[in-house]
Amino acid sequence: MMKRKLVITGSQGFIATNLILKLAESKNFELHGIDSGIAKSINKKFSKDFIQHHNFDLLDIEKTCEVIDNADVIVHLAAKGNVVESIDNPIENLNANVISTVNLLEAMRRTKVKNIVFSSTGGALMGNTKPPVNEYSLPSPISPYGASKLACEGYLSAFSNSFKINSIALRFGNVYGKYSSHKVGVINKWIRAALNKQSIDIFGDGTSTRDYIHVDDLCNGLIASIERLLKIENINFEKYHLANNREISLLEICQIIEKFTDQKLKKEFKDFRIGEVVRNCSDYSLAKEVLYFEPKKEFYEGICELYSWIKETEF
Amino acid sequence: MMKRKLVITGSQGFIATNLILKLAESKNFELHGIDSGIAKSINKKFSKDFIQHHNFDLLDIEKTCEVIDNADVIVHLAAKGNVVESIDNPIENLNANVISTVNLLEAMRRTKVKNIVFSSTGGALMGNTKPPVNEYSLPSPISPYGASKLACEGYLSAFSNSFKINSIALRFGNVYGKYSSHKVGVINKWIRAALNKQSIDIFGDGTSTRDYIHVDDLCNGLIASIERLLKIENINFEKYHLANNREISLLEICQIIEKFTDQKLKKEFKDFRIGEVVRNCSDYSLAKEVLYFEPKKEFYEGICELYSWIKETEF
Repeated sequence: MMKRKLVITGSQGFIATNLILKLAESKNFELHGIDSGIAKSINKKFSKDFIQHHNFDLLDIEKTCEVIDNADVIVHLAAKGNVVESIDNPIENLNANVISTVNLLEAMRRTKVKNIVFSSTGGALMGNTKPPVNEYSLPSPISPYGASKLACEGYLSAFSNSFKINSIALRFGNVYGKYSSHKVGVINKWIRAALNKQSIDIFGDGTSTRDYIHVDDLCNGLIASIERLLKIENINFEKYHLANNREISLLEICQIIEKFTDQKLKKEFKDFRIGEVVRNCSDYSLAKEVLYFEPKKEFYEGICELYSWIKETEF
Repeated sequence: MMKRKLVITGSQGFIATNLILKLAESKNFELHGIDSGIAKSINKKFSKDFIQHHNFDLLDIEKTCEVIDNADVIVHLAAKGNVVESIDNPIENLNANVISTVNLLEAMRRTKVKNIVFSSTGGALMGNTKPPVNEYSLPSPISPYGASKLACEGYLSAFSNSFKINSIALRFGNVYGKYSSHKVGVINKWIRAALNKQSIDIFGDGTSTRDYIHVDDLCNGLIASIERLLKIENINFEKYHLANNREISLLEICQIIEKFTDQKLKKEFKDFRIGEVVRNCSDYSLAKEVLYFEPKKEFYEGICELYSWIKETEF
């Protein structure tokens, strides 16, 4: 069977690294990566045998055209994903997320590359819409980061319709798992705090929730989307929520870490941060129906595994 | 009564000029205009006694901050509004519409200007969603222009929530009326063709529809929005469709022009253009309820008046 050329952006990132290692198993793909290096991830060492990494920024449209030329599918994971940073510098976030994405779409138009999977978001896109949300909920971003992802989805929809590009936007829940050493999400920070016997910061009263999804489950959704694009012509623009349809509060995460590390974490309660949504939970029925997506990793087990990985890798 | 400082972007544009002349009647406003001059409009000669025009591009954030400083309300009308041009050059359209708007919002954050009315679109935002659409319909743009307006709405929502800016997005139907000499919409083009005894181009079979709104009616909706922002604190982000809730086909427009000019127009049927929506019709109930918006101009009468104005001004 002829190998398919797959280009992954943000290829040194957390999700990309997990995806590359999974895709390498199948041997069906010739993998190329694009990464600006801004995130200072160390993941190249894990993936370098399986993918050809190219180091440049997607704002460079000529280089982008070169690398994506003749690609069968692009998996666009590059983004600045931090809500609080987007509040501090909305223009920088706009450049990294929206301009880069429209440049990439324009490069696809020029090179006639037809298929793209895009990493969108459930929570930040929906703002404080009452959960559970799904594909029929009205987007209502409350942070520049959320707005950036809505903007990208709009451009995917436009380019799909205007230029016959096939795109699937996957609205991720909060993803956790290994190869995340450069990430500062709450789970990683608190596991490190537990290992260092340090106190943890809780923004708000601890009852705010997120819908967590393990990176292995997420990668299955990504691969199903890649396969759908390779199999079916004229997808146009589709969107799916990939999450667990389960709300987990900050206090619950805290209790889980306390339980299996058998220690009490010292908690410092701080003001709820602007731009952050209060609750997030996504109904993934449509992804289940079309992509046969079904998350399997139990949250407690996933946290324990990540704890071991962080202990081994970072300590 | 102290005058309110109002800044209008795209101030040499078609809608801005109508708005300026209407606002000038009330004498309640100190008017400032920002316009890049790109559209090559001749409207300055109609409005120059009522507004201070500043000539620069909104991409210049420092100058924008200077002009909007201490403004009570901004009416952001500047945009590249042509669907076909956005297909030819999506990046240019992104710069003119999205980057400019986010720059303006960032300038508002820096100068602590609190209120903005934004010119969005009903048709291009909704794509080929079955009409009539309203504020609860899911946006689904099919052109880069439509995507640019969705992106702007998302950023208004984000900045409103994150930085306590009050914003009202008005989703215009297809606006027609005087001070539109630089515009190439179908009504203006066909009136000119009738006056010049030239043939007209019809893209598609002529059954595609738009929801037209006369600029006088639209200006009433704009002024109601300005007043709402001045009266009520903490609006956050609101959106309203301003249209007629009436579909009018290309062939109907043709018949109207033929009827009152008492001539047959020679029609050239051409391919339907990519990016253009097939139908558009917006239910304006919410604008009626909240803004007391109710379009009054009868379409036939509006077309006759515009015909006379174009004949007088351009011929």
